[in-house]
Amino acid sequence: MERLRSGLPDEAVVTDPDVTASYANDMASFCASGTPAVVVLPRTVEQVRHVMRTATELRVPVVPQGARTGLSGAANAGDGWIVLSLVKMDRVLAIDPVDRTAVVEPGVVNAVLSRAVAEHGLYYPPDPSSWEQCTIGGNIGTGSGGLCCVKYGVTAEYVLGLDVVLADGRLLRTGRRTAKGVAGYDLTRLIVGSEGSLGVVVRAVLALKPAPAGQLAVAAEFPSVRAACDAVCAIMARGHAPSLLELMDRTTIRAVNDLARMGLPETTEALLLAAYDTPDPAADLAALGELCTAAGATAVVPAEDAAESEMLLQARRLALTALERITGTTMIDDVAVPRSRLADMLDGVAAIADRHALVIGVCAHAGDGNTHPIVCFDPGDPEAVRHARESFDEIMALGLELGGTITGEHGVGVLKKEWLARELGPVGLELQRGIKAVFDPLGILNPGKVL
Amino acid sequence: MERLRSGLPDEAVVTDPDVTASYANDMASFCASGTPAVVVLPRTVEQVRHVMRTATELRVPVVPQGARTGLSGAANAGDGWIVLSLVKMDRVLAIDPVDRTAVVEPGVVNAVLSRAVAEHGLYYPPDPSSWEQCTIGGNIGTGSGGLCCVKYGVTAEYVLGLDVVLADGRLLRTGRRTAKGVAGYDLTRLIVGSEGSLGVVVRAVLALKPAPAGQLAVAAEFPSVRAACDAVCAIMARGHAPSLLELMDRTTIRAVNDLARMGLPETTEALLLAAYDTPDPAADLAALGELCTAAGATAVVPAEDAAESEMLLQARRLALTALERITGTTMIDDVAVPRSRLADMLDGVAAIADRHALVIGVCAHAGDGNTHPIVCFDPGDPEAVRHARESFDEIMALGLELGGTITGEHGVGVLKKEWLARELGPVGLELQRGIKAVFDPLGILNPGKVL
Repeated sequence: MERLRSGLPDEAVVTDPDVTASYANDMASFCASGTPAVVVLPRTVEQVRHVMRTATELRVPVVPQGARTGLSGAANAGDGWIVLSLVKMDRVLAIDPVDRTAVVEPGVVNAVLSRAVAEHGLYYPPDPSSWEQCTIGGNIGTGSGGLCCVKYGVTAEYVLGLDVVLADGRLLRTGRRTAKGVAGYDLTRLIVGSEGSLGVVVRAVLALKPAPAGQLAVAAEFPSVRAACDAVCAIMARGHAPSLLELMDRTTIRAVNDLARMGLPETTEALLLAAYDTPDPAADLAALGELCTAAGATAVVPAEDAAESEMLLQARRLALTALERITGTTMIDDVAVPRSRLADMLDGVAAIADRHALVIGVCAHAGDGNTHPIVCFDPGDPEAVRHARESFDEIMALGLELGGTITGEHGVGVLKKEWLARELGPVGLELQRGIKAVFDPLGILNPGKVL
Repeated sequence: MERLRSGLPDEAVVTDPDVTASYANDMASFCASGTPAVVVLPRTVEQVRHVMRTATELRVPVVPQGARTGLSGAANAGDGWIVLSLVKMDRVLAIDPVDRTAVVEPGVVNAVLSRAVAEHGLYYPPDPSSWEQCTIGGNIGTGSGGLCCVKYGVTAEYVLGLDVVLADGRLLRTGRRTAKGVAGYDLTRLIVGSEGSLGVVVRAVLALKPAPAGQLAVAAEFPSVRAACDAVCAIMARGHAPSLLELMDRTTIRAVNDLARMGLPETTEALLLAAYDTPDPAADLAALGELCTAAGATAVVPAEDAAESEMLLQARRLALTALERITGTTMIDDVAVPRSRLADMLDGVAAIADRHALVIGVCAHAGDGNTHPIVCFDPGDPEAVRHARESFDEIMALGLELGGTITGEHGVGVLKKEWLARELGPVGLELQRGIKAVFDPLGILNPGKVL
């Protein structure tokens, strides 16, 4: 502690156990965490370097943290670890409309950046549901997605360059400020999604898009999940480029209504939400609506205006919170499949729910084939817990069987470590371990995560 | 040779020195190459694995090759090496309009794939000037760009998953077939742009876009390169999304006219070519044209139709060939700078040309800030050669000084190896070497390239 304090201002070092305990974990269920020895809240790159030099010297594990909204336990601390919280490094350093770039510190909240760039007519697309809380550093760590990814892609596609403090305190500058660049191996992309296990991101150069026109949404009701998936396939096969394309099943619709009285149609089996942010969204939505009707939609209801559109999105964003209220606890899965297999995936999830007599609500970034089956269970009932865990695993097994991945956007953390080995296979796993050893030979950076 | 032949059909092994000599190098100037011992032309993954197992066993260096249209010497062979040419593995294995993916072997020619997916209403954007010759495997190896990248991005953004034969013959499957995925470190992206130094790509899952509407182009004439660059900045700052935005200087314009009698305006100092592939390209081009006029354009001439648009693009694609005719030899640089520094970059290049009394033609993917200064010189004149090399280096130094990169899309190869060390710095370089050692501990895969 003495060594740590020697390079940090007093207020950056927190040891009060009541406070440090609150930094022990992120929002994942079923992920063990320990009692950190100290929480450090640096404000400068030099302070981060000091923390890592000290950690290396004394062989103390470090877990870098953002807002701890993650869902895989990647930000969980172990006993005696240093929590390195980057939330105080929260400055937007530059926004450039000509280069369409922003330079930010890792603790900038996603929504804060989004609003800051909007003032320059620019747009930072990645929009996880937690965008009002989560930080850019955390988004980079987990490779976050969001609703808009079906059109705009995920966090990785917006990270041009990074400053990264390595395990031993050295500073790596990687990537670029330019639109293009192929100088050497892509270390920048390697850091994205590495969940703080390769280095600590202290600065990021992000690519921005021009702000699109306002978004207009439509809701389409389907008599079955499969029919809704058929519509998704038709929409994508016909070259549509909606700015979101989301699916909610009946369980989720009802839960959202119960929570927020949104007035979603409860008699329908599946709801598809789509939006366009093109110059003429109404015309594009009309064409998309026709494909929904052809696939069996019983109703296609366009939003009247931007406000009503935003309400539909809000309903979707509430899904997880709403489902949590059913039984008190949930496990949220994050399996992505080729979108042509989306219907098979969701039918399979329904069969798994039946087999385990569990409620599993489904919402999905349907246009991306990225499903979030949400297993609801009573944490006080050991049988229910066992069934929940089993069904969670069966969902991942099904995803892999359908040519998918165990995680579309939430990451591996501790929650899916064993499953990662299954997805990667022995050759991939060995190479990943080799890379980890190159960056962190002592294994002090977020040990036991990802690999 | 016996060991090699034991796992390969006769016709896959070429040892005739006249033939093997023709596989010694790519299209880069000033890059040494040696005499390969043998050229292997496998048709199956198993044959590639056999080659790599043999090479590992006998410690023989291997250079993977596509169409050898590269411009950095990355595909050059050394004395006694095995050339592993992937051009016979040229099948398009699958095209899926719902998933918007293609699965291809590495030897598929870029233009062949582009036409194949177009039949399904799809679009594979990356379009290097050599697209009628170059292969997808080569594009992945170098991380190729092209004209359309200002709107659609580079090769890296279209590679979802890869099958890679490692140095010791093991098969790595990395990445995904899904739209999203964050399972583990991004080995896929690490392979892209690694110039055959980490593994041999034998299969790729590529992302596709819906086919855009036909492209309409405009040519704008400027009294100075700086005025053209100002127009580029205004266009990008105002949120325009042209499907190409190219700049040619006077030297290049004249060379193209000399070669192909294109009738480009010779009295102008700089020509900006822009195109739109939106539903109403004429309207979008009109708005863009106004920004050109405001920046000082003396004429803004829209193409009459798609055919005339294609002719303008053709003029741009001829630039390198045209400039080569001036003095017989060229060195093409590939420096990318933040687009806000484009004018400074091009003014600097003009000053370097003056100082060395050399002709340096410039064409640029201006919208990306990616410049191709093309140094023309008489290879028989040692003084000219010295000046050419010096100016080539000064251009890279200037690019780095302006916050740019030594290579936007051509790669490092042998041509820019020393410069890569300068761009990366010691920390980045050490990590890159560590990664190389993880993939290729014996150093038999394209040794001496990149790093």
